[in-house]
Amino acid sequence: MNSEASEERDAWIISIGNELLIGKVVNTNFSWLAEQLTSMGYRVRREIAVMDDIEEISWAFKTALSSGASLIISTGGLGPTYDDKTSEALAYALGRRWEVNEKALELVKRKYESAGMEITEHRIKMAKLPEGAFPLENPAGTAPGIMIREGDSLIVALPGVPKEMKAIFNNLIDELEARTEFTVAETEFYVSGIPESSIAPLIDEVVKKYPKVYVKSHPRGKELGAPLLLIHLSARAGNKDDALSMVKRAESMLLSLVKEIGGKINRK
Amino acid sequence: MNSEASEERDAWIISIGNELLIGKVVNTNFSWLAEQLTSMGYRVRREIAVMDDIEEISWAFKTALSSGASLIISTGGLGPTYDDKTSEALAYALGRRWEVNEKALELVKRKYESAGMEITEHRIKMAKLPEGAFPLENPAGTAPGIMIREGDSLIVALPGVPKEMKAIFNNLIDELEARTEFTVAETEFYVSGIPESSIAPLIDEVVKKYPKVYVKSHPRGKELGAPLLLIHLSARAGNKDDALSMVKRAESMLLSLVKEIGGKINRK
Repeated sequence: MNSEASEERDAWIISIGNELLIGKVVNTNFSWLAEQLTSMGYRVRREIAVMDDIEEISWAFKTALSSGASLIISTGGLGPTYDDKTSEALAYALGRRWEVNEKALELVKRKYESAGMEITEHRIKMAKLPEGAFPLENPAGTAPGIMIREGDSLIVALPGVPKEMKAIFNNLIDELEARTEFTVAETEFYVSGIPESSIAPLIDEVVKKYPKVYVKSHPRGKELGAPLLLIHLSARAGNKDDALSMVKRAESMLLSLVKEIGGKINRK
Repeated sequence: MNSEASEERDAWIISIGNELLIGKVVNTNFSWLAEQLTSMGYRVRREIAVMDDIEEISWAFKTALSSGASLIISTGGLGPTYDDKTSEALAYALGRRWEVNEKALELVKRKYESAGMEITEHRIKMAKLPEGAFPLENPAGTAPGIMIREGDSLIVALPGVPKEMKAIFNNLIDELEARTEFTVAETEFYVSGIPESSIAPLIDEVVKKYPKVYVKSHPRGKELGAPLLLIHLSARAGNKDDALSMVKRAESMLLSLVKEIGGKINRK
């Protein structure tokens, strides 16, 4: 990657749920979170999807922690059913006790009591957190999210239901933004009439001159016959102006090169 | 998981591309492949998404191989641009030479020559494969897929463009099906009027009696106020009849229990 890799704030996303691994659900939580974290300045380094299994979930958290991730966000597995195992697996991964958290229990009780429902064993389960964890109020559902600090890493476990996941995440934006020191700038355009394999050497020239700019071509047409490419440029820097300036200079160089070989540019 | 875990054919999916990790693209390749492999009898155990980086891609392949995966399918990173690194990373992960494959070169040349275009360095790159790899013709594009055997594992690298990925995969169905000895049966229904936390103990009873059946509840409404759940049951067995019979018996038990506490059943 680039020379700033070691200074960057790496984020990992852990997606939990058999429904993802049997292909029943498209993982839109991942792309939503990835976009949010990227725009905050994190480098989302890896995403891992695992089954609803203590060993599997625990493996994912341990792998992320041992890589030195600054932020680890998981989705799924916080509900009341037998296969909701994220909280227990997290306790297991961290070697901490898994116990009823009084603050979490209060949050869960309040939800059910206000609906005139009693607290049951399966509802109490949603209030069991790893020792030392902080419950995150769920404005759109009943299962609280979980926040834990472990060494220099911050772990946030969110529910899998998208509206609950987003509602809890949105309450954390200030805290998560405060952890990053980078911002991202990006731009994109379409090129038609030139196959990707002919643009490849031009992109090489640009990234050689601007090694901190990432240039990605997305084929949207047919390499042979009707080539259409979406070209996306992005850069990460300590402040917005630097990032934007790098992206703009790289874009301008690439536009000239593409036009020279007869590429047609479109902004939309 | 269940007691057959060790007999099962584990599949891993490796999703390659910065576009996934910045949240620009929703990973529909993953869900499509996961659904195909599950219906063939594979247990899709893990999915990993990594950046366009030799070390990162190589780490993903090595992690999958060391877990004893029967099948490892990757998507993305086979094109002509500088950030298409899957083939080189795969060679690196396997400790094999990365070299022009004559059969692959013939496939690539044929595509460009039939379009009246010459072969260039960036087009030859698409024909560079790990030593001992077998190129897979791409009926919908120019970059061939890659098939490699390593120990008991089969590795298949597919392009990231969905129609190219699917076209190559569809040519492999017979070969991939021949590697599994399991089939899957599934069924699903909706329950309204009962919160998930009240259905949770009933599901516990069912999976206690039918430990090989996997029961998943997907919240589709509001836990409090307007609960609606999609309940999905699935089982994997050596033949379709056994799998179906298990699923049907577990479903019938769950339906009775849910009706007893006043749940309304809907098939659609």
